[in-house]
Formats: sequence, C-alpha cells, structure tokens
Amino acid sequence: MSTKLLDTNTPIIPLSECRRFITDCLLSVGAPKSNAEALADLLVEADYRGHYSHGMNRVEMYLSEIQNGICKTDAVPEILKESPATAWVDGHSGLGVIVGNFCMDLAIQKAQKVGVGFVVCKGSNHYGIAGKYALQAMEKGLIGLSFTNTSPAVAPTRTRQAALGTNPLSLAAPGLNGDSFCLDMATSAVALGKIEMKKRTNSEIPAQWWDSQTGALHPLGGSEENSSYKGYGLAALVEIFCGILGGGAYGPNIRIMGNFDRLADLGHCFIAIDPTCFAPGFEARLSDLMSSLRNMPSVDKEKPVLVPGDSERLHMEAVDKAGGVRYVEDQMEACRRVAQTLKIKPLTPLKQ
Amino acid sequence: MSTKLLDTNTPIIPLSECRRFITDCLLSVGAPKSNAEALADLLVEADYRGHYSHGMNRVEMYLSEIQNGICKTDAVPEILKESPATAWVDGHSGLGVIVGNFCMDLAIQKAQKVGVGFVVCKGSNHYGIAGKYALQAMEKGLIGLSFTNTSPAVAPTRTRQAALGTNPLSLAAPGLNGDSFCLDMATSAVALGKIEMKKRTNSEIPAQWWDSQTGALHPLGGSEENSSYKGYGLAALVEIFCGILGGGAYGPNIRIMGNFDRLADLGHCFIAIDPTCFAPGFEARLSDLMSSLRNMPSVDKEKPVLVPGDSERLHMEAVDKAGGVRYVEDQMEACRRVAQTLKIKPLTPLKQ
Repeated sequence: MSTKLLDTNTPIIPLSECRRFITDCLLSVGAPKSNAEALADLLVEADYRGHYSHGMNRVEMYLSEIQNGICKTDAVPEILKESPATAWVDGHSGLGVIVGNFCMDLAIQKAQKVGVGFVVCKGSNHYGIAGKYALQAMEKGLIGLSFTNTSPAVAPTRTRQAALGTNPLSLAAPGLNGDSFCLDMATSAVALGKIEMKKRTNSEIPAQWWDSQTGALHPLGGSEENSSYKGYGLAALVEIFCGILGGGAYGPNIRIMGNFDRLADLGHCFIAIDPTCFAPGFEARLSDLMSSLRNMPSVDKEKPVLVPGDSERLHMEAVDKAGGVRYVEDQMEACRRVAQTLKIKPLTPLKQ
Repeated sequence: MSTKLLDTNTPIIPLSECRRFITDCLLSVGAPKSNAEALADLLVEADYRGHYSHGMNRVEMYLSEIQNGICKTDAVPEILKESPATAWVDGHSGLGVIVGNFCMDLAIQKAQKVGVGFVVCKGSNHYGIAGKYALQAMEKGLIGLSFTNTSPAVAPTRTRQAALGTNPLSLAAPGLNGDSFCLDMATSAVALGKIEMKKRTNSEIPAQWWDSQTGALHPLGGSEENSSYKGYGLAALVEIFCGILGGGAYGPNIRIMGNFDRLADLGHCFIAIDPTCFAPGFEARLSDLMSSLRNMPSVDKEKPVLVPGDSERLHMEAVDKAGGVRYVEDQMEACRRVAQTLKIKPLTPLKQ
C-alpha cells in the first residue's frame, strides 16, 4: 500500500481503459456482458485502492479458471434457504464477484427490513478484495462485513503445514461527510504478496512472517509467544462463517490455487447491519473516534497515525491526480500477451 | 493458560466454595441474591477455564466499584429500541454479568425466531470473560459471539499512547458429541496479565508485546512490520460494535480502571446465529475440521496442535480431577482480607 502510484517507469493507464480491457478479456472467453463488467469493476477497484495483487494481476488466473471450466461465467446464484435475517446461497460455480454482489445485495435488503442480514454461500470462486462487498453495504448507510475462505496457505500454531487460508475479513462503516472506516485484512501475519516482494528484491523474509522450511505463512501474531494462536483462531472464525456454515469446501480440503482437478467450491459470508437500530448518531461518533486516532502524536512525523481505509483513500487520491494507475513492466507484458492470445485491443496508456 | 492447576503450595478450593464465597461478598455489599450468584458463576467459570486474571482476582475490583457507586447491583437492564433481529439496551450501570446475560438471552431469542440476534448495550460495567456469553448461545445449539470495549491500554500503530482497550472478542460454536470451538481473545498482542507475570519473575518483556516507554500494549501483530495495524483494526472493529453502535463511552474517552470519578458506561455486543438456517450438518463439519487440525504433526511432540477452547478444556479436566482450583498465596491473602473486612466466612479449602 502506498500513498503514491507504483514507482515504475511504465505509462499511466486510465481506470476506464483498465475496465475496458478486462471487460474485453472476459467477453472474449464467453462471459455475459454484465458479468464481464462486474468483474472489471471489482479488479479495477482493487488497483484503484492500491491492492495491486487483487486487480489486473489476477486477470490471467480468472481467465484460466474460466477456460478450464472451474468458473462458469453465466451461472446464476440460487437461494437455497431463507429466514428474515439469513440466507444460504449456492453460487453454482459462478464468478466470485457475481455471487458476492448477489449475496451482499440480499444481506442489505434483509438489514433494511429486520436490522441485520447474514448471508452465507457455497459453490463460489475467488471474490477479489473482501472490502468491495463491505463497502457495498456502507454505501447504503449500513455497516458491512465480508469474509471468505481461501486455499490452504497458513500453518496453525505449533505445526509447519498449511491447513487454513489467509481467510480475510473486512468491515466498512460510514462516518460524517463521506468519511469512512474500512478494515480489509488477511488473518495471516502478512499477505502472500509481501513474501513475493521480499523475494523479488532479494531481501530477508522476517521469521515472524512465515515458516521458511515449508513456505507456509504464520497466522497474525507470528509466533506462539506473540499470540499467533489468535491469528489462527481468527482464520478458523472466518472458516466457520464460510465453509462450515455454507457447506462448501473448507480448511485443508480446499484445492490448491491453480489446480483444475476440481471445483473451488469456496464459501463467503456477508453481513449488513443497520446502525439506526441502535443509538442515534452513529456516524458522528465514528468520525469523532477516527479524528481522535488520526490526531495522535506519531512516533515518526513522516508517518501519521492512520485509521483503516486511510491508506486506500490516499492511494485513490494519487490515482485521481495522475489520471490513472501504473503497473509494473511484468504486468504490462502479461497484458500484451493476453491481448494477443485473445485477439483483443491491447491495454492503451493515456496519451502524454 | 495451563493444562494443570497453578503450580503453588496453596490448598485446593472446591468450585462450590469459591461460588459461596463470592456470593457472600456480594450479598454483604447489598447485591440481590440472584445477581450475587450470577457474578459468582461468572468469576468461578473464568477460574475453572484457567483465566485466573478474570476470576477471584477481580473480586476486590468489583466490590470497590459497587462500594463507590459506579456499579449498581440492583439495576435492571432496559430495552431502548428493538427490531426483529436487533436490540439496543441500557444497562443502567448494573453488573456487567447481569447486563450481559440479559442481552445474550435476547440475542438467542431473536436468533431462534429470525436466524440472527444482534444486541448492543451501553451503560454497563466489566462483564468478565467474553467467552461466557458466547458459550451461553452455544449451549442452545447456536453460534455465539461477544465483544466488549475496555479502558484505554493499547497504542494504535505508529503512536506510543494508549487509545483503545484490549477489546476482546469471542466466538463459540458446537461440534458433535459435546465437542466445541471457543475462541476468546484480546485484540492486543498479549493480555495485561502476561506483562504482570513477566514483571513478577523479573523476566524481560518482549518488544513485540508493549511500548516499554509508555507501558501501552501493542495491538496483535506487535509492530507495523508484523502487521500490528491488523490488531489495531480489530480493536477498532470491536469498538464500533460496542461504544460506537451503543452510544456509551468509547476509545480514549473510557475512564481508566480504578478511577471512580465517573461511570464506566461500557458497551458490549452479543450475536447469536442459528446454524440450521444454513447448510445442514454444521456440527459434523466443525468436528471434522477440528480433528484435522488437532491431528496435524506438531513441531514439538509435547505441544500438540490445539483448537481454540482446548486449553480451557484441559484446564477444566485438571480442576475436576483435583476437586477444585488453587490460587497463588497473594490471592489467598486477599480473600482473607476481604472476609475480615466484610465479616463473612473465609474461603475454606477442601478437607485433606
């Protein structure tokens, strides 16, 4: 995460062009137009927010899941069971974003009627950044939460073997005058992308991040002495909300990413909560808490105290100012390759 | 947490006697009998589960809050606002356990009717171990969650000053044949009790645990490099569910423990979820996941891989076998002092 664009010499690409490119990719492998656009919106939002690992970087993975029949771009999610505050949904192996948008819309409707909506699905695929769905509820004035299980990558405390995913969770809530809180975090010590970055720069990987012997990530906390059982417990909490409640794949049974021998059958959980069901003045209190935190004396004057969502906000401002995003050369090359293979118009930078 | 009783030469005290003693303490300061017994049950459950910091250790604190008028032992919680899935409650400065039991009962009733119950209160006091209330829902076959804000003790990432509490969260869920999952964790790197233990034994306190300059705890993660902003974000998530939704005290505005100049006005949040609203077979899947985790190869054969709740289960077995708990001499002395002051029957060990 950065408060400026990626430090690379590649040209600026407008977000609308990123969206056009991803939509074209999806159309060329047979996705219905509205579903192609929904996936483009999701991936572009990730890049816009500075979560580059979850944006354009994922296009090849999504294409290959579609081409290998793991992900059905025209699947329609189905409600299997429903109560006033809950729903259980089958994603029928559709695009994660289609399943996610469907489920969060449902959670929002339920929250608007009975105060809370709690929706769990099975039969889904990668759904991108967890924050996307939490923000969807926030835009309606609600508190939104979103959770997903993922392929095994994290070793529980006391073992070296991966058994749970990085299992992210997100909470977004509205403050005053368009301000907001948006926590979007993996429950592992660090995201896989941070390990890759250290490798790319030949830097030493901190022992608190992973087990260098097996490559499994440590849960948040890093070591048992530093309470990694809490990060492990949180990963399990996310799994209970996703695979265990939803009845899809869970824990060590989830396929390893990039294997096409079976469906992903991922589970997600979406919660919407109407703050007007509780004490009046929610937004004002949240804004007051956020400004208390932001105004605290920081250890390093160059690094102010932030609240969750501030890094993303700063990154979005930088993108707006620059007129688009920058990708590393490796990513630009991947986009050229994809354009050639799929015979679509290449990703075209802003005219300088 | 330990799989055996405390390593001390003090005598065994049966749990029933701990309960009798705490009830007598509360009755002598004017608490109604049922409220005295509810607090005794809460504190004895903490000791039984091995969370000694939250059991008998807290009796003097509770007594002094009652004697100083901060905590009203006869207060009756009141529902201020209600929807099918939610309730907002005023604890009227009652005992945390009375407010907590009331709110979780309400959440359970709502979950049984509409699938989810989400109850938030203000105007409460310390409610003991978060796990107590999550387990209350679990005993009805539901998933239970509980959250509370607490006095400022944790420094957000990038500052040395405390602004948020250790803000614990708990999730309990039923497995097969009486097995269960129970995560009960502070969102700080460690609990304050662990710092006290290191001081008592003159051991060095790990830098990942606290800021030695101000004494503020680090959030889970320990340092920015090790993702302490995630632990900080989780503490803020808990505060959003408690003080910000509930409209009581929040964040840096919460009084420092032991100050009697104003009411605690703590907020808690209680969620109950009916797993039968989702995929059939929840308990079987949870048990299957837990046995996969427990059977993983451990780094140290003496330390098997556990799931959240196993440490407590092992401790409870040790208590049952011994016929009671053991307290450190310091605690025994405190109990003698309390008995003398309040003129009640002293804590009486098991006859050997």
